[in-house]
Amino acid sequence: MIVATSISKVRETINNVKQKNKLIGFVPTMGALHEGHLSLVRKAKKETDFVVVSIFVNPTQFGENEDYNSYPRHFKRDKEILKQEKVDMVFYPSVRTMYPEDFSVYVKETSLSKYLCGKTRKGHFQGVCTVVTKLFNIVQPHISYFGQKDYQQAQIVKRLVRDLNFPIKIKVLPIVRERSGLAMSSRNNYLTQEERERASYLFRGLKLGEELIKKGEKKAHLITEEMRRFINKHVSSKIDYINIVDPYTLKDVDIIEGKVLIALAVYVGKARLIDNLIVNPGGSRKSSIKGKGRRFF
Amino acid sequence: MIVATSISKVRETINNVKQKNKLIGFVPTMGALHEGHLSLVRKAKKETDFVVVSIFVNPTQFGENEDYNSYPRHFKRDKEILKQEKVDMVFYPSVRTMYPEDFSVYVKETSLSKYLCGKTRKGHFQGVCTVVTKLFNIVQPHISYFGQKDYQQAQIVKRLVRDLNFPIKIKVLPIVRERSGLAMSSRNNYLTQEERERASYLFRGLKLGEELIKKGEKKAHLITEEMRRFINKHVSSKIDYINIVDPYTLKDVDIIEGKVLIALAVYVGKARLIDNLIVNPGGSRKSSIKGKGRRFF
Repeated sequence: MIVATSISKVRETINNVKQKNKLIGFVPTMGALHEGHLSLVRKAKKETDFVVVSIFVNPTQFGENEDYNSYPRHFKRDKEILKQEKVDMVFYPSVRTMYPEDFSVYVKETSLSKYLCGKTRKGHFQGVCTVVTKLFNIVQPHISYFGQKDYQQAQIVKRLVRDLNFPIKIKVLPIVRERSGLAMSSRNNYLTQEERERASYLFRGLKLGEELIKKGEKKAHLITEEMRRFINKHVSSKIDYINIVDPYTLKDVDIIEGKVLIALAVYVGKARLIDNLIVNPGGSRKSSIKGKGRRFF
Repeated sequence: MIVATSISKVRETINNVKQKNKLIGFVPTMGALHEGHLSLVRKAKKETDFVVVSIFVNPTQFGENEDYNSYPRHFKRDKEILKQEKVDMVFYPSVRTMYPEDFSVYVKETSLSKYLCGKTRKGHFQGVCTVVTKLFNIVQPHISYFGQKDYQQAQIVKRLVRDLNFPIKIKVLPIVRERSGLAMSSRNNYLTQEERERASYLFRGLKLGEELIKKGEKKAHLITEEMRRFINKHVSSKIDYINIVDPYTLKDVDIIEGKVLIALAVYVGKARLIDNLIVNPGGSRKSSIKGKGRRFF
Protein backbone atom coordinates (compact mmCIF):
# COMPACT_ATOMS: atom_id res chain seq x y z
CA MET A 1 0.00 0.00 0.00
CA ILE A 2 1.37 3.38 -1.04
CA VAL A 3 1.19 6.08 1.63
CA ALA A 4 1.33 9.47 -0.14
CA THR A 5 1.62 12.68 1.81
CA SER A 6 2.38 14.94 -1.16
CA ILE A 7 0.13 15.84 -4.07
CA SER A 8 2.94 15.15 -6.54
CA LYS A 9 3.26 11.57 -5.26
CA VAL A 10 -0.47 10.99 -5.81
CA ARG A 11 -0.31 12.53 -9.31
CA GLU A 12 2.66 10.40 -10.29
CA THR A 13 0.94 7.24 -9.06
CA ILE A 14 -2.39 8.10 -10.65
CA ASN A 15 -0.76 8.91 -13.99
CA ASN A 16 0.87 5.47 -14.01
CA VAL A 17 -2.41 3.77 -13.09
CA LYS A 18 -4.34 5.67 -15.78
CA GLN A 19 -1.75 4.67 -18.39
CA LYS A 20 -2.79 1.08 -17.69
CA ASN A 21 -6.46 1.95 -18.24
CA LYS A 22 -7.36 0.95 -14.71
CA LEU A 23 -10.57 2.10 -13.03
CA ILE A 24 -9.87 4.29 -10.00
CA GLY A 25 -12.13 4.19 -6.93
CA PHE A 26 -11.92 6.84 -4.23
CA VAL A 27 -13.14 7.02 -0.63
CA PRO A 28 -12.53 10.43 1.00
CA THR A 29 -12.52 10.25 4.80
CA MET A 30 -11.46 12.19 7.87
CA GLY A 31 -9.99 9.01 9.36
CA ALA A 32 -10.94 7.39 12.68
CA LEU A 33 -12.25 4.65 10.45
CA HIS A 34 -15.23 2.48 11.36
CA GLU A 35 -17.39 -0.11 9.64
CA GLY A 36 -19.24 2.62 7.76
CA HIS A 37 -16.03 3.68 6.02
CA LEU A 38 -15.07 0.07 5.44
CA SER A 39 -18.33 -0.67 3.66
CA LEU A 40 -17.32 2.07 1.18
CA VAL A 41 -13.77 0.73 0.84
CA ARG A 42 -15.01 -2.82 0.23
CA LYS A 43 -17.47 -1.65 -2.40
CA ALA A 44 -14.67 0.31 -4.10
CA LYS A 45 -12.43 -2.79 -4.00
CA LYS A 46 -15.20 -4.78 -5.69
CA GLU A 47 -16.00 -2.27 -8.39
CA THR A 48 -12.66 -0.68 -9.31
CA ASP A 49 -9.04 -1.68 -10.00
CA PHE A 50 -7.18 0.84 -7.88
CA VAL A 51 -8.61 2.11 -4.60
CA VAL A 52 -7.49 5.38 -3.03
CA VAL A 53 -8.55 6.42 0.48
CA SER A 54 -7.80 9.92 1.72
CA ILE A 55 -7.47 10.70 5.41
CA PHE A 56 -7.66 14.42 6.07
CA VAL A 57 -9.37 16.24 8.93
CA ASN A 58 -10.39 19.23 6.83
CA PRO A 59 -10.24 22.46 8.85
CA THR A 60 -12.40 24.49 6.42
CA GLN A 61 -15.48 22.39 7.14
CA PHE A 62 -15.38 23.01 10.91
CA GLY A 63 -16.96 26.11 12.43
CA GLU A 64 -15.10 28.21 14.98
CA ASN A 65 -16.79 26.60 17.96
CA GLU A 66 -16.75 23.10 16.57
CA ASP A 67 -14.58 20.10 17.32
CA TYR A 68 -11.71 20.48 14.82
CA ASN A 69 -9.03 20.16 17.49
CA SER A 70 -10.62 17.31 19.39
CA TYR A 71 -11.73 15.35 16.30
CA PRO A 72 -10.32 11.80 16.70
CA ARG A 73 -7.07 11.14 14.84
CA HIS A 74 -5.74 7.57 14.69
CA PHE A 75 -3.58 7.42 11.59
CA LYS A 76 -1.46 4.42 12.59
CA ARG A 77 -4.53 2.35 13.35
CA ASP A 78 -6.31 3.58 10.20
CA LYS A 79 -3.29 2.72 8.06
CA GLU A 80 -3.20 -0.85 9.40
CA ILE A 81 -6.91 -1.29 8.73
CA LEU A 82 -6.58 -0.03 5.16
CA LYS A 83 -3.58 -2.27 4.54
CA GLN A 84 -5.68 -5.25 5.62
CA GLU A 85 -8.42 -4.15 3.23
CA LYS A 86 -5.81 -4.17 0.44
CA VAL A 87 -6.32 -0.50 -0.34
CA ASP A 88 -3.83 0.57 -3.05
CA MET A 89 -3.01 4.08 -1.88
CA VAL A 90 -3.69 6.24 1.17
CA PHE A 91 -3.45 10.00 0.72
CA TYR A 92 -2.61 11.63 4.05
CA PRO A 93 -1.71 15.28 3.43
CA SER A 94 -0.89 17.99 5.94
CA VAL A 95 -3.08 21.08 6.28
CA ARG A 96 -0.34 23.19 4.62
CA THR A 97 -0.22 20.82 1.65
CA MET A 98 -3.94 21.27 1.10
CA TYR A 99 -4.17 24.96 2.04
CA PRO A 100 -1.15 27.12 1.18
CA GLU A 101 -0.90 30.33 3.15
CA ASP A 102 -2.59 32.60 0.57
CA PHE A 103 -5.23 30.04 -0.39
CA SER A 104 -8.23 31.95 -1.79
CA VAL A 105 -10.53 29.76 -3.92
CA TYR A 106 -13.68 28.17 -2.53
CA VAL A 107 -16.55 26.12 -3.90
CA LYS A 108 -20.03 26.72 -2.56
CA GLU A 109 -23.42 25.11 -3.05
CA THR A 110 -26.24 27.60 -2.62
CA SER A 111 -29.48 25.62 -2.53
CA LEU A 112 -29.29 22.23 -0.76
CA SER A 113 -26.89 23.61 1.83
CA LYS A 114 -29.45 26.09 3.17
CA TYR A 115 -31.30 23.36 5.04
CA LEU A 116 -30.74 20.83 7.86
CA CYS A 117 -27.08 20.92 9.01
CA GLY A 118 -26.44 23.97 6.81
CA LYS A 119 -28.58 26.10 9.10
CA THR A 120 -26.46 25.62 12.21
CA ARG A 121 -23.12 24.74 10.63
CA LYS A 122 -22.41 27.96 8.69
CA GLY A 123 -19.69 27.46 6.10
CA HIS A 124 -19.56 23.70 6.70
CA PHE A 125 -20.69 22.67 3.23
CA GLN A 126 -18.48 25.27 1.56
CA GLY A 127 -15.57 23.58 3.32
CA VAL A 128 -16.83 20.17 2.19
CA CYS A 129 -17.33 21.29 -1.44
CA THR A 130 -13.90 22.92 -1.52
CA VAL A 131 -11.99 19.94 -0.14
CA VAL A 132 -13.94 17.43 -2.24
CA THR A 133 -13.19 19.45 -5.40
CA LYS A 134 -9.51 19.51 -4.48
CA LEU A 135 -9.42 15.78 -3.71
CA PHE A 136 -11.26 14.94 -6.94
CA ASN A 137 -8.69 16.93 -8.92
CA ILE A 138 -5.79 15.31 -7.10
CA VAL A 139 -7.02 11.69 -7.19
CA GLN A 140 -9.00 11.91 -10.47
CA PRO A 141 -11.17 8.89 -9.66
CA HIS A 142 -13.76 7.30 -11.93
CA ILE A 143 -16.04 6.46 -9.01
CA SER A 144 -16.19 8.04 -5.54
CA TYR A 145 -18.04 6.56 -2.58
CA PHE A 146 -19.97 8.36 0.17
CA GLY A 147 -22.07 7.21 3.11
CA GLN A 148 -25.75 7.89 3.46
CA LYS A 149 -25.32 8.85 7.12
CA ASP A 150 -24.21 12.23 5.79
CA TYR A 151 -27.22 12.30 3.48
CA GLN A 152 -27.12 16.05 2.90
CA GLN A 153 -23.39 15.95 2.18
CA ALA A 154 -23.88 13.15 -0.35
CA GLN A 155 -26.65 15.11 -2.11
CA ILE A 156 -24.48 18.22 -2.20
CA VAL A 157 -21.52 16.27 -3.60
CA LYS A 158 -23.78 14.82 -6.29
CA ARG A 159 -24.90 18.35 -7.15
CA LEU A 160 -21.28 19.53 -7.17
CA VAL A 161 -20.37 16.80 -9.64
CA ARG A 162 -23.35 17.57 -11.85
CA ASP A 163 -22.98 21.36 -11.82
CA LEU A 164 -19.20 21.55 -12.15
CA ASN A 165 -19.20 18.64 -14.67
CA PHE A 166 -16.73 16.39 -12.91
CA PRO A 167 -16.24 13.19 -14.97
CA ILE A 168 -16.87 11.15 -11.81
CA LYS A 169 -19.65 8.82 -10.70
CA ILE A 170 -20.86 9.24 -7.10
CA LYS A 171 -22.16 6.21 -5.24
CA VAL A 172 -23.95 6.55 -1.92
CA LEU A 173 -24.03 3.48 0.31
CA PRO A 174 -26.43 2.67 3.18
CA ILE A 175 -25.82 3.63 6.78
CA VAL A 176 -24.01 0.97 8.78
CA ARG A 177 -25.35 0.68 12.33
CA GLU A 178 -24.30 -0.96 15.54
CA ARG A 179 -26.55 -3.75 16.89
CA SER A 180 -28.28 -1.14 19.03
CA GLY A 181 -29.25 0.83 15.92
CA LEU A 182 -26.71 3.60 16.57
CA ALA A 183 -25.33 4.85 13.26
CA MET A 184 -21.58 4.35 13.00
CA SER A 185 -19.71 7.64 13.33
CA SER A 186 -16.22 8.77 14.25
CA ARG A 187 -17.90 11.14 16.69
CA ASN A 188 -19.29 8.17 18.64
CA ASN A 189 -15.74 8.14 20.10
CA TYR A 190 -16.82 11.12 22.22
CA LEU A 191 -19.59 9.17 23.96
CA THR A 192 -19.44 7.65 27.44
CA GLN A 193 -21.07 4.23 27.82
CA GLU A 194 -24.19 5.80 29.27
CA GLU A 195 -24.38 8.36 26.45
CA ARG A 196 -23.90 5.63 23.88
CA GLU A 197 -26.94 3.81 25.25
CA ARG A 198 -29.02 6.97 25.13
CA ALA A 199 -27.75 7.70 21.60
CA SER A 200 -29.12 4.40 20.38
CA TYR A 201 -32.61 5.84 20.88
CA LEU A 202 -32.00 8.25 17.98
CA PHE A 203 -32.63 5.46 15.52
CA ARG A 204 -35.69 4.34 17.50
CA GLY A 205 -36.91 7.92 17.21
CA LEU A 206 -36.52 7.74 13.44
CA LYS A 207 -38.35 4.39 13.41
CA LEU A 208 -41.15 5.97 15.45
CA GLY A 209 -41.47 8.64 12.75
CA GLU A 210 -41.51 5.96 10.08
CA GLU A 211 -44.18 4.00 11.94
CA LEU A 212 -46.44 7.05 12.18
CA ILE A 213 -46.06 7.71 8.43
CA LYS A 214 -46.78 4.07 7.59
CA LYS A 215 -49.88 4.24 9.76
CA GLY A 216 -51.12 7.05 7.54
CA GLU A 217 -50.17 10.23 9.41
CA LYS A 218 -49.60 12.89 6.77
CA LYS A 219 -48.96 16.00 8.86
CA ALA A 220 -45.19 16.32 9.16
CA HIS A 221 -45.34 18.62 12.19
CA LEU A 222 -47.35 16.10 14.22
CA ILE A 223 -44.75 13.44 13.49
CA THR A 224 -41.75 15.61 14.32
CA GLU A 225 -43.46 16.73 17.55
CA GLU A 226 -43.96 13.13 18.57
CA MET A 227 -40.34 12.32 17.71
CA ARG A 228 -39.14 15.37 19.61
CA ARG A 229 -40.94 14.22 22.77
CA PHE A 230 -39.46 10.74 22.39
CA ILE A 231 -35.89 11.94 21.81
CA ASN A 232 -36.15 14.57 24.50
CA LYS A 233 -37.15 11.83 26.95
CA HIS A 234 -34.74 9.06 25.92
CA VAL A 235 -31.73 10.81 24.38
CA SER A 236 -31.16 14.49 25.06
CA SER A 237 -32.96 17.80 25.25
CA LYS A 238 -30.34 19.46 23.03
CA ILE A 239 -32.04 18.81 19.72
CA ASP A 240 -30.54 20.81 16.82
CA TYR A 241 -33.25 19.75 14.36
CA ILE A 242 -35.71 17.03 13.50
CA ASN A 243 -37.04 17.58 9.99
CA ILE A 244 -39.11 15.76 7.43
CA VAL A 245 -37.91 16.92 4.02
CA ASP A 246 -38.09 16.22 0.31
CA PRO A 247 -35.16 13.82 -0.34
CA TYR A 248 -34.20 15.68 -3.51
CA THR A 249 -34.58 19.40 -2.64
CA LEU A 250 -34.16 18.95 1.17
CA LYS A 251 -36.99 21.44 1.69
CA ASP A 252 -39.42 20.87 4.54
CA VAL A 253 -42.49 18.82 3.67
CA ASP A 254 -45.78 19.86 5.32
CA ILE A 255 -48.06 17.13 4.06
CA ILE A 256 -46.44 13.76 3.38
CA GLU A 257 -47.53 12.40 0.02
CA GLY A 258 -44.49 10.57 -1.31
CA LYS A 259 -41.01 9.51 -0.33
CA VAL A 260 -39.52 11.68 2.42
CA LEU A 261 -36.32 11.93 4.39
CA ILE A 262 -36.54 12.12 8.18
CA ALA A 263 -33.31 13.72 9.36
CA LEU A 264 -32.09 14.79 12.75
CA ALA A 265 -29.14 16.26 14.61
CA VAL A 266 -28.94 15.95 18.38
CA TYR A 267 -26.23 16.74 20.92
CA VAL A 268 -25.40 13.84 23.22
CA GLY A 269 -22.77 14.93 25.71
CA LYS A 270 -19.96 16.49 23.68
CA ALA A 271 -21.03 14.82 20.44
CA ARG A 272 -23.33 16.30 17.81
CA LEU A 273 -24.84 13.20 16.23
CA ILE A 274 -26.78 13.02 12.97
CA ASP A 275 -28.94 10.26 11.56
CA ASN A 276 -31.63 9.87 8.92
CA LEU A 277 -34.12 7.51 7.39
CA ILE A 278 -35.81 7.52 4.00
CA VAL A 279 -39.48 6.63 4.30
CA ASN A 280 -41.81 5.73 1.46
CA PRO A 281 -45.40 5.89 2.76
CA GLY A 282 -46.70 3.32 0.29
CA GLY A 283 -43.52 1.37 -0.40
CA SER A 284 -42.84 -0.65 2.75
CA ARG A 285 -42.92 -4.03 1.04
CA LYS A 286 -40.58 -2.98 -1.77
CA SER A 287 -38.04 -1.49 0.55
CA SER A 288 -37.98 -4.54 2.82
CA ILE A 289 -37.37 -6.79 -0.18
CA LYS A 290 -34.49 -4.54 -1.21
CA GLY A 291 -32.92 -4.63 2.26
CA LYS A 292 -29.72 -6.62 2.56
CA GLY A 293 -28.05 -8.02 5.67
CA ARG A 294 -27.39 -5.43 8.33
CA ARG A 295 -28.53 -2.48 6.30
CA PHE A 296 -31.54 -0.83 7.83
CA PHE A 297 -32.98 0.71 4.64
CA MET B 1 -13.23 20.11 -37.26
CA ILE B 2 -15.71 18.66 -34.78
CA VAL B 3 -18.44 21.07 -33.65
CA ALA B 4 -19.79 19.80 -30.33
CA THR B 5 -22.82 21.39 -28.71
CA SER B 6 -23.34 18.72 -26.05
CA ILE B 7 -21.12 17.85 -23.10
CA SER B 8 -21.42 14.15 -23.91
CA LYS B 9 -20.04 14.72 -27.41
CA VAL B 10 -17.01 16.50 -25.96
CA ARG B 11 -16.46 13.76 -23.37
CA GLU B 12 -16.66 11.03 -26.00
CA THR B 13 -14.16 12.83 -28.23
CA ILE B 14 -11.79 13.66 -25.38
CA ASN B 15 -11.85 10.07 -24.09
CA ASN B 16 -10.81 8.86 -27.54
CA VAL B 17 -8.06 11.45 -27.78
CA LYS B 18 -6.73 10.64 -24.30
CA GLN B 19 -6.64 6.93 -25.18
CA LYS B 20 -4.10 7.88 -27.84
CA ASN B 21 -1.97 9.73 -25.27
CA LYS B 22 -2.36 13.00 -27.11
CA LEU B 23 -1.73 16.35 -25.45
CA ILE B 24 -4.91 18.46 -25.29
CA GLY B 25 -4.75 22.25 -25.61
CA PHE B 26 -7.71 24.44 -24.72
CA VAL B 27 -8.65 28.04 -25.49
CA PRO B 28 -11.84 29.17 -23.75
CA THR B 29 -13.46 32.18 -25.47
CA MET B 30 -16.73 34.09 -25.67
CA GLY B 31 -16.44 34.17 -29.48
CA ALA B 32 -16.31 37.27 -31.71
CA LEU B 33 -12.78 36.12 -32.36
CA HIS B 34 -9.92 38.51 -33.10
CA GLU B 35 -6.17 38.28 -33.47
CA GLY B 36 -5.76 38.11 -29.70
CA HIS B 37 -7.73 34.85 -29.57
CA LEU B 38 -5.90 33.57 -32.63
CA SER B 39 -2.52 34.08 -31.01
CA LEU B 40 -3.71 31.70 -28.28
CA VAL B 41 -5.07 29.18 -30.80
CA ARG B 42 -1.82 29.22 -32.79
CA LYS B 43 0.25 28.71 -29.66
CA ALA B 44 -2.00 25.80 -28.70
CA LYS B 45 -1.63 24.31 -32.19
CA LYS B 46 2.15 24.53 -31.82
CA GLU B 47 2.37 23.04 -28.35
CA THR B 48 -0.35 20.39 -28.23
CA ASP B 49 -1.80 17.59 -30.37
CA PHE B 50 -5.51 18.28 -30.10
CA VAL B 51 -6.83 21.82 -29.80
CA VAL B 52 -10.26 22.59 -28.37
CA VAL B 53 -11.77 26.10 -28.51
CA SER B 54 -14.96 26.85 -26.58
CA ILE B 55 -17.31 29.62 -27.64
CA PHE B 56 -19.75 30.49 -24.89
CA VAL B 57 -21.01 33.90 -23.85
CA ASN B 58 -21.23 33.07 -20.16
CA PRO B 59 -24.22 34.79 -18.51
CA THR B 60 -22.95 34.32 -14.93
CA GLN B 61 -19.97 36.61 -15.49
CA PHE B 62 -22.11 39.58 -16.59
CA GLY B 63 -23.65 41.93 -14.04
CA GLU B 64 -27.29 42.97 -14.29
CA ASN B 65 -26.58 46.25 -16.01
CA GLU B 66 -23.83 44.89 -18.24
CA ASP B 67 -23.76 43.98 -21.92
CA TYR B 68 -24.73 40.29 -21.88
CA ASN B 69 -27.50 40.75 -24.43
CA SER B 70 -25.58 43.03 -26.77
CA TYR B 71 -22.27 41.14 -26.54
CA PRO B 72 -21.21 40.36 -30.17
CA ARG B 73 -22.09 36.86 -31.36
CA HIS B 74 -20.73 35.70 -34.75
CA PHE B 75 -20.64 31.93 -34.54
CA LYS B 76 -20.66 31.23 -38.29
CA ARG B 77 -17.75 33.56 -38.86
CA ASP B 78 -15.90 32.25 -35.77
CA LYS B 79 -16.39 28.66 -36.94
CA GLU B 80 -14.87 29.42 -40.35
CA ILE B 81 -11.88 31.13 -38.75
CA LEU B 82 -11.25 28.17 -36.43
CA LYS B 83 -11.57 25.73 -39.32
CA GLN B 84 -8.87 27.65 -41.16
CA GLU B 85 -6.68 27.50 -38.07
CA LYS B 86 -7.13 23.69 -38.11
CA VAL B 87 -8.65 23.64 -34.66
CA ASP B 88 -9.70 20.07 -33.82
CA MET B 89 -12.90 20.71 -31.88
CA VAL B 90 -15.15 23.67 -31.13
CA PHE B 91 -17.39 23.41 -28.08
CA TYR B 92 -20.43 25.64 -28.55
CA PRO B 93 -22.95 24.85 -25.81
CA SER B 94 -26.28 26.51 -25.06
CA VAL B 95 -26.87 28.31 -21.77
CA ARG B 96 -29.20 25.48 -20.68
CA THR B 97 -26.50 22.90 -21.38
CA MET B 98 -24.11 24.76 -19.10
CA TYR B 99 -26.62 25.88 -16.47
CA PRO B 100 -29.51 23.49 -15.77
CA GLU B 101 -32.54 25.11 -14.15
CA ASP B 102 -31.65 24.26 -10.54
CA PHE B 103 -27.92 24.93 -10.96
CA SER B 104 -26.50 25.76 -7.53
CA VAL B 105 -22.72 25.35 -7.33
CA TYR B 106 -20.30 28.25 -7.74
CA VAL B 107 -16.58 28.78 -7.50
CA LYS B 108 -15.27 32.01 -6.00
CA GLU B 109 -11.86 33.56 -5.55
CA THR B 110 -11.73 35.79 -2.50
CA SER B 111 -8.45 37.69 -2.63
CA LEU B 112 -7.31 38.76 -6.11
CA SER B 113 -10.88 39.44 -7.18
CA LYS B 114 -11.33 42.21 -4.61
CA TYR B 115 -9.28 44.64 -6.71
CA LEU B 116 -9.38 46.33 -10.14
CA CYS B 117 -12.34 45.05 -12.19
CA GLY B 118 -13.63 43.12 -9.17
CA LYS B 119 -14.57 46.39 -7.45
CA THR B 120 -17.07 47.53 -10.08
CA ARG B 121 -18.01 44.18 -11.61
CA LYS B 122 -19.55 42.43 -8.58
CA GLY B 123 -19.85 38.69 -9.16
CA HIS B 124 -17.91 38.84 -12.43
CA PHE B 125 -14.99 36.71 -11.30
CA GLN B 126 -17.25 34.22 -9.55
CA GLY B 127 -18.91 33.74 -12.94
CA VAL B 128 -15.51 33.38 -14.59
CA CYS B 129 -14.24 30.89 -11.99
CA THR B 130 -17.43 28.85 -12.21
CA VAL B 131 -17.48 28.58 -16.00
CA VAL B 132 -13.73 27.94 -16.24
CA THR B 133 -14.03 25.12 -13.68
CA LYS B 134 -16.88 23.61 -15.69
CA LEU B 135 -15.01 23.93 -18.99
CA PHE B 136 -11.85 22.43 -17.48
CA ASN B 137 -13.84 19.43 -16.26
CA ILE B 138 -15.57 19.01 -19.60
CA VAL B 139 -12.53 19.45 -21.88
CA GLN B 140 -9.88 18.08 -19.46
CA PRO B 141 -7.00 19.83 -21.20
CA HIS B 142 -3.32 19.51 -20.34
CA ILE B 143 -2.63 23.16 -21.18
CA SER B 144 -5.08 26.07 -21.29
CA TYR B 145 -4.29 29.46 -22.84
CA PHE B 146 -5.37 32.91 -21.68
CA GLY B 147 -4.65 36.45 -22.87
CA GLN B 148 -2.80 39.00 -20.81
CA LYS B 149 -5.31 41.69 -21.75
CA ASP B 150 -7.48 40.19 -19.03
CA TYR B 151 -4.52 40.19 -16.66
CA GLN B 152 -6.61 39.92 -13.50
CA GLN B 153 -8.66 37.08 -14.96
CA ALA B 154 -5.50 35.20 -15.91
CA GLN B 155 -4.09 35.61 -12.39
CA ILE B 156 -7.35 34.43 -10.87
CA VAL B 157 -7.48 31.40 -13.17
CA LYS B 158 -3.91 30.54 -12.19
CA ARG B 159 -4.93 30.78 -8.54
CA LEU B 160 -8.01 28.64 -9.24
CA VAL B 161 -5.82 25.97 -10.79
CA ARG B 162 -3.36 26.08 -7.91
CA ASP B 163 -5.90 26.12 -5.09
CA LEU B 164 -8.34 23.58 -6.52
CA ASN B 165 -5.44 21.40 -7.78
CA PHE B 166 -6.48 21.12 -11.41
CA PRO B 167 -3.93 18.99 -13.30
CA ILE B 168 -3.69 21.74 -15.93
CA LYS B 169 -0.97 24.15 -16.99
CA ILE B 170 -2.05 27.76 -17.59
CA LYS B 171 -0.19 29.83 -20.17
CA VAL B 172 -0.74 33.56 -20.45
CA LEU B 173 0.17 35.17 -23.79
CA PRO B 174 0.96 38.84 -24.50
CA ILE B 175 -1.66 41.39 -25.52
CA VAL B 176 -2.12 41.68 -29.26
CA ARG B 177 -2.65 45.31 -30.35
CA GLU B 178 -3.80 47.10 -33.44
CA ARG B 179 -1.25 49.34 -35.18
CA SER B 180 -2.67 52.26 -33.21
CA GLY B 181 -1.83 50.50 -29.96
CA LEU B 182 -5.45 49.67 -29.17
CA ALA B 183 -5.63 46.28 -27.43
CA MET B 184 -7.66 43.79 -29.44
CA SER B 185 -11.03 43.12 -27.81
CA SER B 186 -14.41 41.81 -28.88
CA ARG B 187 -15.86 44.91 -27.25
CA ASN B 188 -14.03 47.11 -29.77
CA ASN B 189 -16.97 46.10 -31.98
CA TYR B 190 -19.05 48.61 -30.04
CA LEU B 191 -16.82 51.57 -31.04
CA THR B 192 -17.56 54.12 -33.75
CA GLN B 193 -14.59 55.19 -35.89
CA GLU B 194 -14.16 58.33 -33.81
CA GLU B 195 -14.35 56.38 -30.53
CA ARG B 196 -11.82 53.86 -31.85
CA GLU B 197 -9.36 56.69 -32.48
CA ARG B 198 -9.86 58.06 -28.99
CA ALA B 199 -9.55 54.55 -27.53
CA SER B 200 -6.08 54.20 -29.02
CA TYR B 201 -4.92 56.81 -26.50
CA LEU B 202 -5.47 54.31 -23.69
CA PHE B 203 -2.25 52.56 -24.59
CA ARG B 204 -0.47 55.90 -24.90
CA GLY B 205 -1.73 56.66 -21.40
CA LEU B 206 -0.17 53.43 -20.18
CA LYS B 207 3.09 54.29 -21.99
CA LEU B 208 3.04 57.71 -20.32
CA GLY B 209 2.84 55.95 -16.95
CA GLU B 210 5.70 53.67 -17.93
CA GLU B 211 7.80 56.64 -19.04
CA LEU B 212 7.32 58.40 -15.71
CA ILE B 213 8.34 55.25 -13.84
CA LYS B 214 11.41 54.77 -16.04
CA LYS B 215 12.35 58.39 -15.38
CA GLY B 216 12.45 57.55 -11.70
CA GLU B 217 9.07 58.68 -10.38
CA LYS B 218 8.26 56.43 -7.43
CA LYS B 219 5.00 57.90 -6.12
CA ALA B 220 2.21 55.87 -7.70
CA HIS B 221 -0.47 58.51 -7.05
CA LEU B 222 1.47 61.16 -8.98
CA ILE B 223 1.71 58.85 -11.97
CA THR B 224 -1.94 57.82 -11.96
CA GLU B 225 -2.96 61.49 -11.61
CA GLU B 226 -0.89 62.36 -14.68
CA MET B 227 -2.39 59.43 -16.58
CA ARG B 228 -5.87 60.41 -15.48
CA ARG B 229 -5.42 63.92 -16.88
CA PHE B 230 -4.11 62.48 -20.14
CA ILE B 231 -6.90 59.95 -20.58
CA ASN B 232 -9.53 62.40 -19.48
CA LYS B 233 -8.34 64.77 -22.21
CA HIS B 234 -7.76 62.31 -25.06
CA VAL B 235 -10.09 59.37 -24.41
CA SER B 236 -13.00 59.82 -22.05
CA SER B 237 -13.93 61.26 -18.68
CA LYS B 238 -15.65 58.04 -17.65
CA ILE B 239 -12.66 56.40 -16.02
CA ASP B 240 -13.53 53.34 -13.93
CA TYR B 241 -10.03 52.97 -12.53
CA ILE B 242 -6.36 53.60 -13.21
CA ASN B 243 -4.25 51.65 -10.74
CA ILE B 244 -0.64 50.76 -10.16
CA VAL B 245 -0.59 47.43 -8.40
CA ASP B 246 1.62 44.54 -7.34
CA PRO B 247 1.46 42.09 -10.30
CA TYR B 248 1.13 39.14 -7.94
CA THR B 249 -1.29 40.30 -5.21
CA LEU B 250 -3.02 43.03 -7.32
CA LYS B 251 -2.91 45.31 -4.28
CA ASP B 252 -2.25 49.02 -4.81
CA VAL B 253 1.39 50.05 -4.68
CA ASP B 254 2.15 53.41 -3.03
CA ILE B 255 5.90 53.61 -3.66
CA ILE B 256 7.18 51.88 -6.77
CA GLU B 257 10.23 49.79 -5.98
CA GLY B 258 9.96 46.76 -8.25
CA LYS B 259 7.88 45.36 -11.06
CA VAL B 260 4.36 46.79 -11.15
CA LEU B 261 1.23 46.42 -13.23
CA ILE B 262 -0.44 49.56 -14.52
CA ALA B 263 -4.06 48.63 -15.21
CA LEU B 264 -7.04 50.67 -16.31
CA ALA B 265 -10.70 50.42 -17.25
CA VAL B 266 -12.33 53.28 -19.14
CA TYR B 267 -15.72 53.69 -20.77
CA VAL B 268 -15.55 54.81 -24.40
CA GLY B 269 -19.05 55.25 -25.77
CA LYS B 270 -20.92 52.04 -24.96
CA ALA B 271 -17.74 50.03 -24.45
CA ARG B 272 -15.96 49.44 -21.17
CA LEU B 273 -12.38 48.89 -22.27
CA ILE B 274 -9.52 47.48 -20.20
CA ASP B 275 -5.80 47.50 -20.82
CA ASN B 276 -2.61 47.02 -18.85
CA LEU B 277 1.14 47.17 -18.95
CA ILE B 278 3.77 45.52 -16.78
CA VAL B 279 6.57 47.91 -15.95
CA ASN B 280 9.90 47.01 -14.43
CA PRO B 281 11.57 50.24 -13.23
CA GLY B 282 15.08 48.85 -13.67
CA GLY B 283 14.48 46.21 -16.28
CA SER B 284 13.81 48.05 -19.52
CA ARG B 285 16.67 46.45 -21.47
CA LYS B 286 15.79 42.91 -20.46
CA SER B 287 12.12 43.29 -21.36
CA SER B 288 12.93 44.81 -24.77
CA ILE B 289 15.25 41.91 -25.57
CA LYS B 290 12.45 39.51 -24.64
CA GLY B 291 9.89 41.31 -26.86
CA LYS B 292 8.96 39.54 -30.06
CA GLY B 293 7.34 40.94 -33.19
CA ARG B 294 4.20 42.90 -32.56
CA ARG B 295 4.07 42.23 -28.86
CA PHE B 296 4.35 45.39 -26.86
CA PHE B 297 5.79 43.89 -23.66
